[in-house]
Amino acid sequence: MSDNFKKQKEKKDEVGSVLEGRNPVIEAFRAGKTVDKVYILDGCQDGPVKTIIREAKKSDTIIYFVSKERLDEMSETGHHQGVIARVASYKYAEIEDIFARADARGEKPFVFLLDGIEDPYNLGAIIRTANVCGAHGVIITKRNASGITPTTVKASAGAVEHMPVVKVTNLSRTIEELKERGLWFVCADMDGEVMYKQDLTGPIGVVIGNEGEGVSRLVREKCDFVTSIPVKGEIESLNASVAAGVLAYEIVRQRM
Amino acid sequence: MSDNFKKQKEKKDEVGSVLEGRNPVIEAFRAGKTVDKVYILDGCQDGPVKTIIREAKKSDTIIYFVSKERLDEMSETGHHQGVIARVASYKYAEIEDIFARADARGEKPFVFLLDGIEDPYNLGAIIRTANVCGAHGVIITKRNASGITPTTVKASAGAVEHMPVVKVTNLSRTIEELKERGLWFVCADMDGEVMYKQDLTGPIGVVIGNEGEGVSRLVREKCDFVTSIPVKGEIESLNASVAAGVLAYEIVRQRM
Repeated sequence: MSDNFKKQKEKKDEVGSVLEGRNPVIEAFRAGKTVDKVYILDGCQDGPVKTIIREAKKSDTIIYFVSKERLDEMSETGHHQGVIARVASYKYAEIEDIFARADARGEKPFVFLLDGIEDPYNLGAIIRTANVCGAHGVIITKRNASGITPTTVKASAGAVEHMPVVKVTNLSRTIEELKERGLWFVCADMDGEVMYKQDLTGPIGVVIGNEGEGVSRLVREKCDFVTSIPVKGEIESLNASVAAGVLAYEIVRQRM
Repeated sequence: MSDNFKKQKEKKDEVGSVLEGRNPVIEAFRAGKTVDKVYILDGCQDGPVKTIIREAKKSDTIIYFVSKERLDEMSETGHHQGVIARVASYKYAEIEDIFARADARGEKPFVFLLDGIEDPYNLGAIIRTANVCGAHGVIITKRNASGITPTTVKASAGAVEHMPVVKVTNLSRTIEELKERGLWFVCADMDGEVMYKQDLTGPIGVVIGNEGEGVSRLVREKCDFVTSIPVKGEIESLNASVAAGVLAYEIVRQRM
């Protein structure tokens, strides 16, 4: 693998460090570090590997069972012993941090929920927008979504340092929990009512869908409203981060 | 130069082809092709080079006088003879195409003017937004700005095929000309009046500034209004393409 390729690869990866080998990975779990993902040699079943799987399940870490070739390719040291893990150095926030930010400003909660944003640049631009428009936090999902990568940090223009970004396993369940705390949920989709006609002034969670697929059915069903941004051209949707911005500022306008 | 590097380099370049050598470049001018940029060996003064410089000036092509090392680095054939040119294959539109689109839809003109957007991805996202929100065209500048690159085409989600994109030499002069045709100009800047309080319903040109520097002084002075997007967080500005989207939809709202 050329240096050049390695550099490109690194760019796509989550901010944080890579651990290789059984002991370093077990130690990371035991030290309470946030292990985002663990890659385990498919079919490997010995004691230490079972320990890693157990710890990973306990802490909601995503487990991938992969081939030896894949691990060899990912390995930087060449000594992975069948286990590679990615440890977050970005410290994700908790839901409580979002409420704390709203309380500190004496405002009704205003949160973005991202249902599978895959492009780290879009993620960064949305976190930036969330900060600028006065939202209190951003919730992202663990699976099938971009985490905070170096590209995200750059695209956020520093907003990742200020905004609580929370990573959850199940977005529908998070919506349920937040509903109990008084939030209303609105998701952006083509067939919703035009946003200008809806009352978006309450405590609100705005759901932005995946770049290609939009909001997933299960998540959409949990939302109180479906809202739409008027479309007047040949192209039928905005870029995800632009859509988030347009919706955000309709909320700002209504709240002013 | 490795293949990998070449590929990366290509990605940053304008859509179109590269011509190397005196005769191919002279022929391109004589065939009426849009030559975006010509790179000439600094100090080179012979007949054919003088012809190229004359043709370039006639057609408003940007001329760069560069070192032999620079030309060698850019050259793909290794036989540049002191001249390399970039020929647009993307066909830029004319101002009239923008008015024609507005007329065809029976709408008051609504145009985006980009004062030095450098990021091809932002350019593509803005062209996409311009299409979706119902604007009639996008005007970009020749100098210090991204042209239509492959990244732009992709980020535009196909909108470059539908939207008139016009490339001008002098944005201030273009604003003057469009004012004579009844357009009002609004530029986005931090110290403007909040956009919700302004009347944005007339025939309008929206000026979006460079990612880092904002709108240049000369262009700003030509604008009728300065408008601002409210800022409520620690970060003081939106990504350029998000800002364009937010402003675009305030105009859409007011026109509805």
